[in-house]
Amino acid sequence: MDIFANRRHKLLQRMEEEGIDHLLITGALNRYYLSGFELGDPQCNESAGFLLLGRDFVQLFTDPRYERAAEKALGRENLSIYRQNKFEVLSEFLGKKNIQTLYFEPVHLSFESHSKLRDEGVDLFPADRLFVEKQRMIKENGEIEEIEASCALNHRVFSQIRDFLRPGISEKELAWEVERLYRSQGAEELSFSTIAAFGPNAALPHAIPGDVALKENDLVLLDMGCRLNNYCSDQTRTFHVGPKDGRFEEIKEMVVEAQDRAIKEIKPGMEFREAYALSRDYFREMGVEKYFTHALGHGIGLETHEPPSLAPTAEGSFQENMVVTVEPGLYYPQWGGVRWEYMIHVKKHGARVL
Amino acid sequence: MDIFANRRHKLLQRMEEEGIDHLLITGALNRYYLSGFELGDPQCNESAGFLLLGRDFVQLFTDPRYERAAEKALGRENLSIYRQNKFEVLSEFLGKKNIQTLYFEPVHLSFESHSKLRDEGVDLFPADRLFVEKQRMIKENGEIEEIEASCALNHRVFSQIRDFLRPGISEKELAWEVERLYRSQGAEELSFSTIAAFGPNAALPHAIPGDVALKENDLVLLDMGCRLNNYCSDQTRTFHVGPKDGRFEEIKEMVVEAQDRAIKEIKPGMEFREAYALSRDYFREMGVEKYFTHALGHGIGLETHEPPSLAPTAEGSFQENMVVTVEPGLYYPQWGGVRWEYMIHVKKHGARVL
Repeated sequence: MDIFANRRHKLLQRMEEEGIDHLLITGALNRYYLSGFELGDPQCNESAGFLLLGRDFVQLFTDPRYERAAEKALGRENLSIYRQNKFEVLSEFLGKKNIQTLYFEPVHLSFESHSKLRDEGVDLFPADRLFVEKQRMIKENGEIEEIEASCALNHRVFSQIRDFLRPGISEKELAWEVERLYRSQGAEELSFSTIAAFGPNAALPHAIPGDVALKENDLVLLDMGCRLNNYCSDQTRTFHVGPKDGRFEEIKEMVVEAQDRAIKEIKPGMEFREAYALSRDYFREMGVEKYFTHALGHGIGLETHEPPSLAPTAEGSFQENMVVTVEPGLYYPQWGGVRWEYMIHVKKHGARVL
Repeated sequence: MDIFANRRHKLLQRMEEEGIDHLLITGALNRYYLSGFELGDPQCNESAGFLLLGRDFVQLFTDPRYERAAEKALGRENLSIYRQNKFEVLSEFLGKKNIQTLYFEPVHLSFESHSKLRDEGVDLFPADRLFVEKQRMIKENGEIEEIEASCALNHRVFSQIRDFLRPGISEKELAWEVERLYRSQGAEELSFSTIAAFGPNAALPHAIPGDVALKENDLVLLDMGCRLNNYCSDQTRTFHVGPKDGRFEEIKEMVVEAQDRAIKEIKPGMEFREAYALSRDYFREMGVEKYFTHALGHGIGLETHEPPSLAPTAEGSFQENMVVTVEPGLYYPQWGGVRWEYMIHVKKHGARVL
């Protein structure tokens, strides 16, 4: 059985437990995860196709552009091609198989698509939100190897980019150098838009690189990652250009300590929100809690941001073979910000930093 | 009035005509088009925020990551920040304004978000599908200038890339050279994944660049575009490497003739499907209709693929200041394919090729 069939097999067991006979998979990453067909869609509002999963079959629906790729993934016999109305083609298929009820992914089906499907006379039920993502949270060994390779390239580019941190370079130029280094070393794409923020811009957790030029004594916050062999990496470092700066060192030490306190304790069974609380409580002790304005981290794999979220209100606990980021930060308007982000692999007895 | 306020003003007139008091804008490109806030979302399943548009106000809802960017776009007074449940924050706002009914974008709201909103006690009605996109179809003068600039860079890269069409280069390498040329000349990103297909691979309208190396006498189909200053370009050319090839020349001539027949006739008032029919009928005359397997073209602007579609069943007619692609192609399995794509600006008395 190939890895995709294996994943479907596993999902079918959960479907059986929940009384789901047929599940429609419209999320692009979930479709790829379960079939190997097309990791992405051409645009967010333009799908490359969807899957129908039943106890004894899988069917892929796509348009003629993807016919050959779809055949390669699942074989001619498991393929339906639509031209105009995709849901008419699906509805015909359901009719032939005598399928009356269908579960769907509520996060990945638009209101309009839902209405159209309902108009085809299908009884529709939302599956648990993130039903497939819950399986994706627990990484297979092969996936962990791919994530490690992506992370290793990320480390390499961090060491190469140091040479470019010279006064005069702009945020945009630095971001482009980062991208060139990734791509020329095999990455398919950025896993997200690089954040390269200088000086006070680093106070924005989500800064967009601009034309501002690097100056002596500036902070440089670099949050960057690539997609290598389908899997994402995501890491942040904050540098200071020029002679040692007391305030920068002090803040950086606090951030790294907050990160360390969480990573040291994370292991299977611990609640996600506890990990967040470990960093937050340390910041509270130090009287800087209000400068920590976001969640502690997030799952990473085929997507840069995937479940779980290490947020203060997150439900659920760590399990073996999750891969998450741990990225506390402190942001001071006017001055700048420091964020430090590692990717960790949750193992039986604790976390391993990738 | 800035361009964004201007666009909202125009949209409000259509809302009034259709009896829509309040419209929720969740599509990322529509949000940007109407506010200037964040062209894209971090991921397809992760929004940077949404807009609420009423007769005498506009309100932007976003999370703390985007606070400063949002303030810059619409000002503090038109801003609501959410942390956990975005729809709770929206619902509070609606309560304060005493708003009971809300229209939404059915294509850009997930089933789940719709359910959550409904749970907040709001009466929800779908607006016409692509309500905002219909306004985006008609380009403003400033937009046409931006599209022309994007298209001009595309032309330049096509002339520069010729030097790389040497036997030995792989599809992937060629695609990467294309991207480097765009980016080093100011483009923000590709407007879609470059299609660089050699030989028989060119028979796939949607080929993914691979490791296959270019050989003497190969076809090269290059479909590529960039985003420059937010606006997209998209053009295809097909080359033949080496001495003249009779079959290639013959097929290319037919494709260019089919394109020409459509472009010559396109003007305001003509139906979209008529343009498609002009190319298709010529191919039919030549006995090659069955090798033309896709629509004739699509609108282009902030997105690479946006309405209208020049498909055989498309509803609607050309209007002044639409910008669309015209891209007939002929695909012969085993041999390869030829596609030729221009972008045109629909003017009062006919089409102008960009």
